[in-house]
Amino acid sequence: MKLTDLITPVALIDLTRMQHNIERMQTQINGLGANFRPHVKTSKCVEATRAQVQAGAHGITVSTIKEAEQFFAAGITDILYAVGLAPNKLASAAALMHKGCDLKVLTDSVQSAQAIAAFGKAHGVCFKVLIEIDTDDHRSGIKPEAAQLLEVARALTAPECEIVGVMTHAGSSYDLNTPEALISMAEQERAGCVHAAERLRQAGFACAVVSIGSTPTALSAQNLKGVTEVRAGVYIFFDLVMHNVGVCAMNEIALSVLTSVIGHQEDKGWAIIDAGWMAMSRDRGTQKQGVDFGYGQVCDLKGAPIKGYTVSAANQEHGIISRAGQPDLEIAKHFPIGTQFRILPNHACATGAQYPEYQALDATGHVQTWSRFYGW
Amino acid sequence: MKLTDLITPVALIDLTRMQHNIERMQTQINGLGANFRPHVKTSKCVEATRAQVQAGAHGITVSTIKEAEQFFAAGITDILYAVGLAPNKLASAAALMHKGCDLKVLTDSVQSAQAIAAFGKAHGVCFKVLIEIDTDDHRSGIKPEAAQLLEVARALTAPECEIVGVMTHAGSSYDLNTPEALISMAEQERAGCVHAAERLRQAGFACAVVSIGSTPTALSAQNLKGVTEVRAGVYIFFDLVMHNVGVCAMNEIALSVLTSVIGHQEDKGWAIIDAGWMAMSRDRGTQKQGVDFGYGQVCDLKGAPIKGYTVSAANQEHGIISRAGQPDLEIAKHFPIGTQFRILPNHACATGAQYPEYQALDATGHVQTWSRFYGW
Repeated sequence: MKLTDLITPVALIDLTRMQHNIERMQTQINGLGANFRPHVKTSKCVEATRAQVQAGAHGITVSTIKEAEQFFAAGITDILYAVGLAPNKLASAAALMHKGCDLKVLTDSVQSAQAIAAFGKAHGVCFKVLIEIDTDDHRSGIKPEAAQLLEVARALTAPECEIVGVMTHAGSSYDLNTPEALISMAEQERAGCVHAAERLRQAGFACAVVSIGSTPTALSAQNLKGVTEVRAGVYIFFDLVMHNVGVCAMNEIALSVLTSVIGHQEDKGWAIIDAGWMAMSRDRGTQKQGVDFGYGQVCDLKGAPIKGYTVSAANQEHGIISRAGQPDLEIAKHFPIGTQFRILPNHACATGAQYPEYQALDATGHVQTWSRFYGW
Repeated sequence: MKLTDLITPVALIDLTRMQHNIERMQTQINGLGANFRPHVKTSKCVEATRAQVQAGAHGITVSTIKEAEQFFAAGITDILYAVGLAPNKLASAAALMHKGCDLKVLTDSVQSAQAIAAFGKAHGVCFKVLIEIDTDDHRSGIKPEAAQLLEVARALTAPECEIVGVMTHAGSSYDLNTPEALISMAEQERAGCVHAAERLRQAGFACAVVSIGSTPTALSAQNLKGVTEVRAGVYIFFDLVMHNVGVCAMNEIALSVLTSVIGHQEDKGWAIIDAGWMAMSRDRGTQKQGVDFGYGQVCDLKGAPIKGYTVSAANQEHGIISRAGQPDLEIAKHFPIGTQFRILPNHACATGAQYPEYQALDATGHVQTWSRFYGW
């Protein structure tokens, strides 16, 4: 199959760019002396994840039990489920461990720790648990200084729980856009998590793992002293949000949506395409950033941006391409019916999720189908 | 299965509400003397669509060739593909017709009409074609008055094309919020499409079908003179956007996301749930409306809103519930770990699309799994 044989819309992976991104991140984390544990919530694809493992990843991070089940079935055993474990998922987590999965789970409260311990006791299971640390005030986790940290550790009673370590994710790094701010946030993420680990150890708890990361901080970190592993997800594909944050060039964005022109409104300077928000996702992450790319940046079939043209509006299966500033009143001549584009998305995690499969494009122009899963 | 047995997050259909919505729309359109052709892009679910057919629907509307294929395989033959046909989908459309599907396709340009006619001629196929009319300036279609209308009709040459009729969708009705404005838009949609049909007929073209509709205009129409069929999609479930438009009550919203509390940030008044934007979709349609519900309205397990509490922020697998105004500093007591909620979504079409299946909840409290498909 070649690009022009595909029925649009298609989620296209540029393999050359993907491989470059994988190596870039692995080299960065290797250079700082930590292990790298990619977050596979971005691709939810076995082939893409294998490329990360082959490049040197140590284990994977998942955001759902289904991801853990699917990747364990594909042969990956070292899995960190990096979302606080809800009581109704204890049985699924235990079932995976029973099958031989080296699953690590997460908690950040006494209530949840007690639920894990109670289930472990009742079912003769030993959960490997990380305690979530809040290093940037943006979501979940316990502050490194909080008394609650030791209370949670005490609630994770042996032998039904084994405290493996601490974990943090400085997701607020997505709101930054200068190297200085990113370097500073990376250090804040590192220092906070290492401090929490030290507090646990001083209180007599084991804390072998210190796990930190987000794509922007992982790529901006200057040192990883005290950190054992780094996690990042979206770097495998990058996207327009990451471009605006400043951690990737436009030509490192490996995921695009292949689309076709299906109509025009010439007097408005619109070309209508068969990629609406269902194909691009509703994610408008660049809306609040320095450059707003609408629903995506329009590129030619080689992946080169067509400057000024974005998907400026979208309905479920219709996208509207227009030019910034003066409308292109000759758009029907420039881009006739059937013209194909590659559209770079706001957010690769959200766009990929709309597709049952990717089409993976190699350097010779051939494409192969890579399956992708979704749901919980 | 009962509600409390489900592993969250879950896309939950309240069957009592869904059946009420189906009957409400069918009664409205029956009363105005037109056929009703539901748009199944909302549910992408055979069981939900069967309920629409049983209530009196005449055929269905689809937004992708895959929907046409799936519903044809489920026994529905009368299908309108209501998105301008891209050249790379001609072969799939012809294959469906060859199998016996009474497929109708759409065009709004001479270029696209010529592509349809050329393919039909080359492959000995007769495409049934509707011409798309633009009655509200919001997306695709030809203005009812435009010379282009007759040019497109002339390009749809026999015997490879049969002009079936005209079709319009006043999608800008989603931007309105008063009964007067909706009634006026419904009349504009009707009058424009009927006028286009009259122009075609005066020029000697057949135009049996006059197809109009959107959920807000279908429910607001006062008369349908000259219209043969009405289409609407999201009414089957409704959502918060439709609530803000003013065409449904909160307790008519039939789709919700069942979720569990997984943590808290007590000093901020946050409860963290396992429904993030992956479970709710990234759709923030209420953001620009009169009432902004964030990523969704929090309801109890019976579907009654818990006033003031919304999903105010979301990451991929984390949602943050907070109270408007004064933070609820006792939120961990009010909603402890494991508490389940039903969250009403901004946009049912977008939220449903995130799930491989629905859980359909009947009046006795039992749930059954209804499969759902996605992709193209």
